[in-house]
Amino acid sequence: MGKIGKLAVTIFTSALVLSACNTSNVSVNKQKPVETKSSSNATSQVFEPHKNVNQKPTPLKIKRIGEHEVTIEMTAQITNIEISKDEFYKAWTFNGEAPGPVIVVNQGDKINFTLKNMDPAIPHSMDMHAVHAAPSKDFINVMPNKSGSFSYSADNAGVFMYHCGTKPVLMHIANGMHGMIIVKPKDGYPTDSQVDREYVVIQNEWYKYNDLDDMTNDKPKYVVLSTKALKEGELNTNGTVGSLVDHPLLAKVGDKVRLYVLNVGPNETSSFHVVGTLFDDVYIDGNPFNHMKGLQTVLLPASGGAVVELTVTKEGSYPIVNHQFNDATKGANGVLKVTKDGKDDGSMVMSH
Amino acid sequence: MGKIGKLAVTIFTSALVLSACNTSNVSVNKQKPVETKSSSNATSQVFEPHKNVNQKPTPLKIKRIGEHEVTIEMTAQITNIEISKDEFYKAWTFNGEAPGPVIVVNQGDKINFTLKNMDPAIPHSMDMHAVHAAPSKDFINVMPNKSGSFSYSADNAGVFMYHCGTKPVLMHIANGMHGMIIVKPKDGYPTDSQVDREYVVIQNEWYKYNDLDDMTNDKPKYVVLSTKALKEGELNTNGTVGSLVDHPLLAKVGDKVRLYVLNVGPNETSSFHVVGTLFDDVYIDGNPFNHMKGLQTVLLPASGGAVVELTVTKEGSYPIVNHQFNDATKGANGVLKVTKDGKDDGSMVMSH
Amino acid sequence: MGKIGKLAVTIFTSALVLSACNTSNVSVNKQKPVETKSSSNATSQVFEPHKNVNQKPTPLKIKRIGEHEVTIEMTAQITNIEISKDEFYKAWTFNGEAPGPVIVVNQGDKINFTLKNMDPAIPHSMDMHAVHAAPSKDFINVMPNKSGSFSYSADNAGVFMYHCGTKPVLMHIANGMHGMIIVKPKDGYPTDSQVDREYVVIQNEWYKYNDLDDMTNDKPKYVVLSTKALKEGELNTNGTVGSLVDHPLLAKVGDKVRLYVLNVGPNETSSFHVVGTLFDDVYIDGNPFNHMKGLQTVLLPASGGAVVELTVTKEGSYPIVNHQFNDATKGANGVLKVTKDGKDDGSMVMSH
Repeated sequence: MGKIGKLAVTIFTSALVLSACNTSNVSVNKQKPVETKSSSNATSQVFEPHKNVNQKPTPLKIKRIGEHEVTIEMTAQITNIEISKDEFYKAWTFNGEAPGPVIVVNQGDKINFTLKNMDPAIPHSMDMHAVHAAPSKDFINVMPNKSGSFSYSADNAGVFMYHCGTKPVLMHIANGMHGMIIVKPKDGYPTDSQVDREYVVIQNEWYKYNDLDDMTNDKPKYVVLSTKALKEGELNTNGTVGSLVDHPLLAKVGDKVRLYVLNVGPNETSSFHVVGTLFDDVYIDGNPFNHMKGLQTVLLPASGGAVVELTVTKEGSYPIVNHQFNDATKGANGVLKVTKDGKDDGSMVMSH
Repeated sequence: MGKIGKLAVTIFTSALVLSACNTSNVSVNKQKPVETKSSSNATSQVFEPHKNVNQKPTPLKIKRIGEHEVTIEMTAQITNIEISKDEFYKAWTFNGEAPGPVIVVNQGDKINFTLKNMDPAIPHSMDMHAVHAAPSKDFINVMPNKSGSFSYSADNAGVFMYHCGTKPVLMHIANGMHGMIIVKPKDGYPTDSQVDREYVVIQNEWYKYNDLDDMTNDKPKYVVLSTKALKEGELNTNGTVGSLVDHPLLAKVGDKVRLYVLNVGPNETSSFHVVGTLFDDVYIDGNPFNHMKGLQTVLLPASGGAVVELTVTKEGSYPIVNHQFNDATKGANGVLKVTKDGKDDGSMVMSH
Repeated sequence: MGKIGKLAVTIFTSALVLSACNTSNVSVNKQKPVETKSSSNATSQVFEPHKNVNQKPTPLKIKRIGEHEVTIEMTAQITNIEISKDEFYKAWTFNGEAPGPVIVVNQGDKINFTLKNMDPAIPHSMDMHAVHAAPSKDFINVMPNKSGSFSYSADNAGVFMYHCGTKPVLMHIANGMHGMIIVKPKDGYPTDSQVDREYVVIQNEWYKYNDLDDMTNDKPKYVVLSTKALKEGELNTNGTVGSLVDHPLLAKVGDKVRLYVLNVGPNETSSFHVVGTLFDDVYIDGNPFNHMKGLQTVLLPASGGAVVELTVTKEGSYPIVNHQFNDATKGANGVLKVTKDGKDDGSMVMSH
């Protein structure tokens, strides 16, 4: 219980692995009730074994142990997440965040992965879209209060989803167990030298608490955009309605901005769009081979990613939206704020 | 009130700018009631300040003033639009049409844009996906009975959406404020010399009048296809169920037909398909770089476009559909009629 | 009404045409009631003229009659299909299967097609996405107990949908009249030499029996994956929940597996994904020109196909899903089982 304090992240990184640390979570200073907000249906009752559980976020651990080998430790845990202003959800999480922390590795890396399951009641698991693995052995359940270790390789570059693959998978994803793993391409992207700054943007849905009916009928309460820190000190948010409007991404006039975007669903597609600009370059699922140009909108499948690059030519606010506007209305929006020097000038932002 | 008379279009075009004029609107001769059809829910009540408003369509004005510079004037206005046979919707429109008139400019053009807002009650704005702009300055609200002028450049070739970006954006788009802007590529498309004729096809949704709940829950009453004139005298329709069946597009046996297609949503994706043929060449979002071949169906995001080219080999009717067949069932269909000489021979058409 | 016996397939194939025969239908040995399962709404009443009809599957006939010419005969018929364990649907089918049998021809083939309509009550038709045809002549209705013959050519390589195009098309597709036609590319795929084995996977939806409301409102009861035999003796299933879990596809450690995938809808898109691997190579709609690499998930429109190729590196179960997980929850899942020798070792599979 208690509060989610400022994240004390233990960082084990080498020069070859970008850290995925989270020292500036924007929703860190709130006291919040253990119970989720009451709603009119019975499903708002907190799942009994989680009733008094609100685990302090455990930082992602990632450490390079060889030129082509990393160890990663993540923690499945139950943590209250603010999903809309002052509305908390007793989320099933990786590392106390939803989406979970971003993982960055290099193409060709062998990953030694450990999942610690702090959930007192339910098994969890890790399904990484980035790797070649035998799901029935490498993505299996880790029981409550146990750890499981697995090993697989990330041979393909791209922007991939990870998620809990324990049944019912729909529920584990919808309750918060999802995130992004970036596999950096061996030979980079053809546009690497043009990029001035880069961010992560993830779309996820929230349903009425733990409500498998609404999940199955695709009736999300919120559809949200969030960002995860790529480097220490960067903005790192949960999937909270309004967080990317209150805490916009920043750029400088003239910048070419790269976004690693991912739609973790679990159900919706995403018509990802940034108002006031176009995507000069797009790499579908983040693979340099899948190069497209001049897209106004990139359509992401459920569990689809992209690297998109855009140029901002004037000062001002550039709304970021899922242009399926019912989803934008449900929260899938944010802002890219462009200033003279790329620092926040305190001016108001315009969002959608 | 009164009727929507034959559109008296003022045309300011130079040789370098295709006109987007509309002299043959197919739904021009109908008397129609001021009120929208009654429906069972309260939202069918006409928004009070629009109650007695039915503004005569004001033509799009577009004028080339330099080799790489155009002026465009559009009008936000409240106009009754026939959305299904004898069913009128008091639409929020650009220029009294929904979708609005198509705009055609050249890649590299600077656009000097003026929005006149004739709506007596509500601000409107213009968000063009084709341009680089600062949304918080260039796409801002124009108050009732005011004008706003903005300037931005269209550097990327393609088939783009424009729409009102005033909050709630979902409502402004769903009520009719959307359309297509084509930015012609500097170096053309590799298949330009093969194309015999070209048309515009746009998909949009209609909801119960002004019903934000149905819009947010993605429960469209109709999903429709329409065409907009690329040149004076060409067929120009609103998004009316059946209009592209009653007034099919025309082609000659053997023609390669280019369609500029756009899905303005606001919510649905579109699995765009023409029965009896395949898309020989597809340029996603209309960018020549994004070339695909031999597609049976192109999946358009909400606010996604494409140039598709298809060959018709025999006389007959070729239904045009959104192959998400529930949307086709709700009206998203039309017909491409192929005759010996490319003229309408008066024969019956077969649709879906 | 008797049982659906083991399919006695008449095969007319030459060396140039892969047969699309079905000698190992997995749901062949069940007695089943004539009535569909009762449900709470009135639409569960069987359509009166079909009440006592349950026609034994008639095999697809396909015969090469020239280097670039084939004859194909298919049969529209009413046949009980198991759509979930022990739940039968009085389906409208091609050849007593839903999806119908897969058709394989060569690029450039002229197809002489005959549709026999055994339905005692309703006309049916054949709309092939693979061909150039005049829909109003070549895809027209064949009346009950009649035959219709048509001729058209398949000039484009790919993985295409065929379906009944009789109105209401939504109902004819949703009731079971859909399938895949593969047009093999003249010059093959660049990755042909790497492929060790290949399968078909099709996604289709089932609604409450014949319920046009649920179809139009996109409320599928089930969304399912099935496979169709490419060669005699191969696994051939209907769109039955769980059939591809109970009867997984098989591969050997190290295999590069090619899947011909198709989403016949009628309404849903499909975020097609295989857990534990990535798609090394993807050809959108099966055209060799539309080459993408390293995709985690391929987004298929309604009536969209792809050739996807993936490598399996370890023994185990690889779940196949629509990663729009509400659809996976409704049945859109299967398993690719990888063993040392590519044969079923009888071990349990893990699915989603």
